[in-house]
Amino acid sequence: MPELRKDPIIGRWVIISTERSKRPSDLLMEKNRFRGGFCPLCPGNEDKTPAEVFAFRESNTPANGPGWKLRVVPNKFPALVIEGAMNPQQQGIYEKMTGIGAHEVIIETTDHTANASTLSPLDFKNILFAYLQRITELKKDGRFRYISIFKNYGEIAGASMEHPHSQVIALPVVPKRALEEMSGAQTYYQKNSRCVFCDIVAQELKSGERIVVENEHFVAIEPFAPRLPFETCLLPKQHISSFEATDTALFSDMADCLSLVLKKINKALGIPPYNYILHSSPTDNSDNGFYHWHFEIIPRLTKVAGFEWGTGFYLNPTPPEQAAQHLRDTVID
Amino acid sequence: MPELRKDPIIGRWVIISTERSKRPSDLLMEKNRFRGGFCPLCPGNEDKTPAEVFAFRESNTPANGPGWKLRVVPNKFPALVIEGAMNPQQQGIYEKMTGIGAHEVIIETTDHTANASTLSPLDFKNILFAYLQRITELKKDGRFRYISIFKNYGEIAGASMEHPHSQVIALPVVPKRALEEMSGAQTYYQKNSRCVFCDIVAQELKSGERIVVENEHFVAIEPFAPRLPFETCLLPKQHISSFEATDTALFSDMADCLSLVLKKINKALGIPPYNYILHSSPTDNSDNGFYHWHFEIIPRLTKVAGFEWGTGFYLNPTPPEQAAQHLRDTVID
Repeated sequence: MPELRKDPIIGRWVIISTERSKRPSDLLMEKNRFRGGFCPLCPGNEDKTPAEVFAFRESNTPANGPGWKLRVVPNKFPALVIEGAMNPQQQGIYEKMTGIGAHEVIIETTDHTANASTLSPLDFKNILFAYLQRITELKKDGRFRYISIFKNYGEIAGASMEHPHSQVIALPVVPKRALEEMSGAQTYYQKNSRCVFCDIVAQELKSGERIVVENEHFVAIEPFAPRLPFETCLLPKQHISSFEATDTALFSDMADCLSLVLKKINKALGIPPYNYILHSSPTDNSDNGFYHWHFEIIPRLTKVAGFEWGTGFYLNPTPPEQAAQHLRDTVID
Repeated sequence: MPELRKDPIIGRWVIISTERSKRPSDLLMEKNRFRGGFCPLCPGNEDKTPAEVFAFRESNTPANGPGWKLRVVPNKFPALVIEGAMNPQQQGIYEKMTGIGAHEVIIETTDHTANASTLSPLDFKNILFAYLQRITELKKDGRFRYISIFKNYGEIAGASMEHPHSQVIALPVVPKRALEEMSGAQTYYQKNSRCVFCDIVAQELKSGERIVVENEHFVAIEPFAPRLPFETCLLPKQHISSFEATDTALFSDMADCLSLVLKKINKALGIPPYNYILHSSPTDNSDNGFYHWHFEIIPRLTKVAGFEWGTGFYLNPTPPEQAAQHLRDTVID
């Protein structure tokens, strides 16, 4: 029988199909096609991007030339503009403001053809440290209330450049999804005096059936009520409300966990297009008892149709217990 | 400068790009490919579907044979099952229940290759009457709290069969998006003693800049803060809280408006994949002062990437004023 399951944080119901459940081989798996051509993110083309705002470089190499290992540059075609006033305006019942914000590209490696399977845990650690550096830096600008970090891999997942990169968008407003999660977590906290994510971690560690990867400080699980097949949540075992509040001593474990999850997804699903998104507390409430930062990882294996769009009600053909089992059984040498 | 705009009902912010704004010809336009092969929805194959639950037929033609103009059948592979008890269960912090519900297919026409451009306003009127009949019928089952009606056109938009059809899903819970809209509209009503949608209609009719089609009883607009290019909202001008509460005398106007909007979208955008979704009040609160039923129409022209998934914050490259102007200028003979 199909099951209706409810997300314990934001209350979203999903349908988990157990009878016609789909195995990885039944799922849409459009391969990532490399398009080739000139790449402004490759070494030697540093003058084709805006000037770097951060980099890991060999000693004594000057900014905006070769010698880097990872580089952060403003997006050449930003969704938001960094200069100016917000200028909020009311037009009858409508509200708008100028699209002030930061939009940066984190060039994760010099290797144009790299992917999560070829990058080392140390590469991942550098990427995660770059996230930390950008959040810390952008938080100093008092206009920004939320800093979103995400990665699109593959055309299907929205990547317009194929060179491995993540993106940072700093926003003057808190996005709807973040508000929903904060609100759901706060309600749970008021009722139970505990963080809902901490309770999820405890219950999942006890049952084990939805765990994908676990180490001392981090765990990756398939959520109880996932919207999409192989949707995965990676979070610290201990309560940490924002990414930037994480002790840097934990970054090795974090990198190992993220690296292993993505390598398993790549191996099990044939290097699928995917997105991952950092969920963290807003800048002005980054230390609290109720919210718990995490990465949401979404392989893009199925199409999202009208029903999902219109209702927020997802039909997921793969039970998370099966997906977790499959990823646990996928061995990375 | 890019603009941040806020949806007045659910409070979602979107970024409207005004500088790099995209014209229809710049947008992804993957053509709908006809795959051919056997079609269980075509006339003559009535025995390949479950028995019909409703049809418009020529006089004296028996059910489940030829002679129909429109036919409603249970989905052969339903997302939810109609028989059984809901059996709600708690598993620690998680909640689930059996996936009880109805899942039906509305076969809109006998013509396998028809689309919105070839169907007449009278065909649309029949389709809309079929929606009304199914809602009225399914509401009699006290287990169903929400009835979702939607259409996926084209593979990209999630259609798995190419014969023109809509779908009905009756649910034992109210989906998240419906709850959000109800809650936003209720808050506005408590503050202003007016329906927020009625206020939107009044403001849009006055300004005219986002209107696509208008007749005596219906209007189609590009919303002030749309997530996606050419997203369109069709609603009755007068306050009606649920689809089934609409006077049948208004169905000709409704059909004319829906038919014309879809024909304009098809002509302007080259018969794109699209979804439309009926948004209406839950079954147990179908007559209220604050919610106003509408169709949400979404041409699927751009890819949804990690940022949108993770934040609920959309980057829309086409200002709705430009989209509305373009659709107004698209003449249907």
